[in-house]
Amino acid sequence: MEQRFSILKKDKSTRARTGILRLKHGDVKTPFYMPVATKGAVKTLLPQEVEAIGYEIILSNTYHLIEKPGLEEIAHFGGINNYMGWKKPILTDSGGYQVFSLHKHVHIEESGVTFRSLIDGKKINATPEKVIEWQDIIGSDIAMVIDVCTPYGIKRESAEKALKITEIWAKRSIEFWSNSYREGRMLFGIVQGNFFKDLRIQATENLINLNFPGYAVGGLSVGEPKELMFEISDLVAQRLPEEKPRYFMGLGDPPSILTAIAQGYDMFDSALATRIARGGSFFTKFGPRNIRNTQLKKSSEKLDPDCTCLACENFTAGYIRHLYLSEETLALRLLTYHNLFFLYNLIEDARSAIERGIYSQFLSNFLNQYSENRFKKV
Amino acid sequence: MEQRFSILKKDKSTRARTGILRLKHGDVKTPFYMPVATKGAVKTLLPQEVEAIGYEIILSNTYHLIEKPGLEEIAHFGGINNYMGWKKPILTDSGGYQVFSLHKHVHIEESGVTFRSLIDGKKINATPEKVIEWQDIIGSDIAMVIDVCTPYGIKRESAEKALKITEIWAKRSIEFWSNSYREGRMLFGIVQGNFFKDLRIQATENLINLNFPGYAVGGLSVGEPKELMFEISDLVAQRLPEEKPRYFMGLGDPPSILTAIAQGYDMFDSALATRIARGGSFFTKFGPRNIRNTQLKKSSEKLDPDCTCLACENFTAGYIRHLYLSEETLALRLLTYHNLFFLYNLIEDARSAIERGIYSQFLSNFLNQYSENRFKKV
Repeated sequence: MEQRFSILKKDKSTRARTGILRLKHGDVKTPFYMPVATKGAVKTLLPQEVEAIGYEIILSNTYHLIEKPGLEEIAHFGGINNYMGWKKPILTDSGGYQVFSLHKHVHIEESGVTFRSLIDGKKINATPEKVIEWQDIIGSDIAMVIDVCTPYGIKRESAEKALKITEIWAKRSIEFWSNSYREGRMLFGIVQGNFFKDLRIQATENLINLNFPGYAVGGLSVGEPKELMFEISDLVAQRLPEEKPRYFMGLGDPPSILTAIAQGYDMFDSALATRIARGGSFFTKFGPRNIRNTQLKKSSEKLDPDCTCLACENFTAGYIRHLYLSEETLALRLLTYHNLFFLYNLIEDARSAIERGIYSQFLSNFLNQYSENRFKKV
Repeated sequence: MEQRFSILKKDKSTRARTGILRLKHGDVKTPFYMPVATKGAVKTLLPQEVEAIGYEIILSNTYHLIEKPGLEEIAHFGGINNYMGWKKPILTDSGGYQVFSLHKHVHIEESGVTFRSLIDGKKINATPEKVIEWQDIIGSDIAMVIDVCTPYGIKRESAEKALKITEIWAKRSIEFWSNSYREGRMLFGIVQGNFFKDLRIQATENLINLNFPGYAVGGLSVGEPKELMFEISDLVAQRLPEEKPRYFMGLGDPPSILTAIAQGYDMFDSALATRIARGGSFFTKFGPRNIRNTQLKKSSEKLDPDCTCLACENFTAGYIRHLYLSEETLALRLLTYHNLFFLYNLIEDARSAIERGIYSQFLSNFLNQYSENRFKKV
């Protein structure tokens, strides 16, 4: 197996590291955050704009793509890259999370999961093998295994049951993956186990034995207290092999991403940046704000001081507020661009701090400036 | 009075002409079409993108701007150009049309018109003088007088009454305008008279006597048969002085614009191009189409053959259709861009045909290719 991941630099006082992930559609510097193109588009933006910000990889979603436009259409266009006009790497989530969060009647067996399409009501049967085949057709650089996602607060018995199936599926997934050569592509296993520490440890160890090209932690950031989340993610990260990339799924708020980088995570994704933009919220180095805030009326300031994004270089917060209140979609476009620009540059700064061996200082400076309390108002 | 309008070339077999309009924020080649930025933004697009297409002038709306964000906010930012980041000329409609179409209880007197704000219910009193003062604050290059707009199908008596007030307002407007020097800015009178030919002729002659810097025809393209519309617009255009620019208000479908150019009109605006984009419709040289059309499923073609716009150069019709059906606003952005690109280049071609003295041939070739019937399905 080719060496797809190389660590370039390790921070001294944290487990943060920088590296390179070599994928079919190009190299990606780690740590990185992936803008979410759930349905084959990063909301409101052109792929050219996402690339111009600096992004080297985006995320799409197998579940959403098989529902609409359907695999046949994506195959017709020769895969997701051609289809959406994005030339760089793409990671696809398997869609397990969506199956369990969007569908009420989901039938889970060891063989796979069955649910009805929300588009046409047809039965869809997803097996570990099929989910990989679907991602083969989509042509994503990084494919994810299908897993059973469980909510915060369930009983141990349910968590055990879900984990058992997740582990059976993981084994079948890596076996199926290993039967074919997929140039420049990777399959990631996902650590589940809900919020039971021993289950998480067991899940991590079992997954490591399957020798996946990369590992993700899933089922976190689903409503649990931040402290508990970081306790679990730390347990997992400490056990994952250093030489493999580590992906913290669904984490999108800036302080949490930086904290998880200190734990040794390399990869992040979240719809947060684009979703809060639609609600008028935007990131600043002093914490998030909302464009509807009356303090911003007639404001000649930038959204975030010193920001050099397209929105901040060309428009005042006062004008963007007017656009938002007038229901002009240009406002959503400007706020989305700003938020993705903010996250890209934040992680770029994190990378640079790791390289200079000053990550703890960088992290604590950032956290001091960025008020978690303000963020909760978003 | 400075010479703001120069005719460069007259077509031989039609009344089409090319020219230059010299305005405060720059020169504008005629004939031209103005993208509509009703609320201070061309829907979905950055001003930089509108300029990159080639546009030299856009339109905004006094009525909408006084409602939101309000004149005080626009004054605070030093006028509409600064506010929205558009450096080139802007024409503002007075908002007469909006007052009469959006408000049920409108009180019209010779002194002015009174209505209640749709934002806060406060009484707004618009007099001819105030409407000019508002446009002074907005800082538009071309201001329009306030007029009484009447729908298609009213009785002669009502049309006469409306026209009488429109004419009183026109006289007060030009008198008020002439009391101050407004560098590089113009005031246009508007010919009304509903669909009564003698009233239109009378209105045109009376307005000419007031010696406005430019003339518009208003109250057309409001649901009447096309033939009747063109009969009226022709009557008016024939009588308007050749050396003044002629503006056909609210006309947006490509064949009609080209036909009105042949009648001697120089300026156009319409929300059509941006509005139909939101419904999925787009212009092609073979007439408009709708992106929802199942023929476009999996289509690898451009929206319009040979089009070189951002949307057509980068994306297939099949993908844009997927975006539209998935309610991704990127679809509206791409269709809006395409439609504005189409109109700009159509009028650019028209200008070039006039310069080469072959406008009739150009017009008949275009009309043959572009099916009016298909357009009606939009």
